Amino acid sequence: MASAGGNSLVLPAVLHIRRSDADFTAALRERFRVLDFFASGEPLPAFLAAAAAAPDPPRAAVVVGGGSVRVDASFLDAVPSLRCVLTTGAGFDHIDLAECARRGVAVANSGEVFSTDVADYAVGLLLDVLWRVSAAERYVRRGSWPAQGDYPLGSKVGGRRVGIIGLGNIGSRIAKRLEAFGCIIHYNSRKAKGSVSYKYFANVQDLAANSDVLVVACALNKATRHIVNKDVLEAQPNTPPKYKSLRDSTRSLHTEQNK
Amino acid sequence: MASAGGNSLVLPAVLHIRRSDADFTAALRERFRVLDFFASGEPLPAFLAAAAAAPDPPRAAVVVGGGSVRVDASFLDAVPSLRCVLTTGAGFDHIDLAECARRGVAVANSGEVFSTDVADYAVGLLLDVLWRVSAAERYVRRGSWPAQGDYPLGSKVGGRRVGIIGLGNIGSRIAKRLEAFGCIIHYNSRKAKGSVSYKYFANVQDLAANSDVLVVACALNKATRHIVNKDVLEAQPNTPPKYKSLRDSTRSLHTEQNK
Repeated sequence: MASAGGNSLVLPAVLHIRRSDADFTAALRERFRVLDFFASGEPLPAFLAAAAAAPDPPRAAVVVGGGSVRVDASFLDAVPSLRCVLTTGAGFDHIDLAECARRGVAVANSGEVFSTDVADYAVGLLLDVLWRVSAAERYVRRGSWPAQGDYPLGSKVGGRRVGIIGLGNIGSRIAKRLEAFGCIIHYNSRKAKGSVSYKYFANVQDLAANSDVLVVACALNKATRHIVNKDVLEAQPNTPPKYKSLRDSTRSLHTEQNK
Repeated sequence: MASAGGNSLVLPAVLHIRRSDADFTAALRERFRVLDFFASGEPLPAFLAAAAAAPDPPRAAVVVGGGSVRVDASFLDAVPSLRCVLTTGAGFDHIDLAECARRGVAVANSGEVFSTDVADYAVGLLLDVLWRVSAAERYVRRGSWPAQGDYPLGSKVGGRRVGIIGLGNIGSRIAKRLEAFGCIIHYNSRKAKGSVSYKYFANVQDLAANSDVLVVACALNKATRHIVNKDVLEAQPNTPPKYKSLRDSTRSLHTEQNK
């Protein structure tokens, strides 16, 4: 798989299991001999076997979340030279941390790099839903304003009780921003945090029953998979349907679908 | 114009020059004999003349901004019984305050009732533009995501210099919210305010030259009409075009168009 000529043979090999933009790929190729899974067109087992059989097998893998490839025991078995797995997102749900630890494979994620942007975007989506920004924009763009009159009013943000599931790097930033809008912050996490004055709910169903809006900002793992289920959504009996909104700022496996 | 029967003849008359929703109209009709301009289908001079000629001419008018009807000298001449003009918005730009004062006609507006919602919405629009929320939504809805790949990234909000023109009820609320996002607040107003630590710019062009985003939150009057002109927009030479955005949270006459 190594190309002949140039200095590519002296660069360390890295597994690249991510659809990346041109800038990222170019930066990676300057420093590594990049073994690109998606460009290879091969099935994963064949790709990994070829990488492992090279004279200088890869000691690192760059992977992305989203469920397409899992770094699990069979992945690690296929490339025993791996000493390090780097994921370009915050979540570890596609990486078997226990298996990595057992084999001494280091795992790194993006840390807090995206936390602020994710929090900003989550607040942007919340304002969009309550104030119907993009829905009203579609109404205007399809010519309905002159024909059918003003778009219906949106919903106030201030005074709204926002229940945040997971008050970590992202959740605490969302809380800080929504406080400035006059929202009342409630939260659920593994345990109450002494550093904040927000009201703590030990279980998600109670949180939902006392919140107008739910924000999911926790890591996705076995304990939080389907953390927002039918019971949680039905726990908001006193909230008019139009105020019910579900914001999953991370990924949809937090939410139990189709039930 | 008064209908016969019922208690409508004992209710005071009010000019209603506003396209209102059913709830507002019903509440008004409970307390007043409502003379509805838009329902009348008459030209304004004929409508006002008929109202003034009634046995109990209106002493109050409920009007709305937006430029369709101006309460000026000829309006006040037509209905000399008027003692009070109420506008349902915050702006007075459609009411000749000097003429009203000269005739002893009281004028009332909505005060701060809408300030919080306008500020919330302005921040929602700002997030929408920087993070391309509704643009990305259109991209997904038209099926481009699977066909053309990820939508281009948005722009960070934190660290962005936001120049607010008019730090009154609305502008100060916008500033408070954007501070929570880590924005750097600059402002222009008639004079610097001792109560805030934001950087003051005595003229709008200097403000624009030192801001990535401009927010217009001042009253519309002779001094602020076309306050954002070509010179102001061109004063941002070091800002990449994609970061230039113009948010007019009140009405477009602040902005000089088509130049």
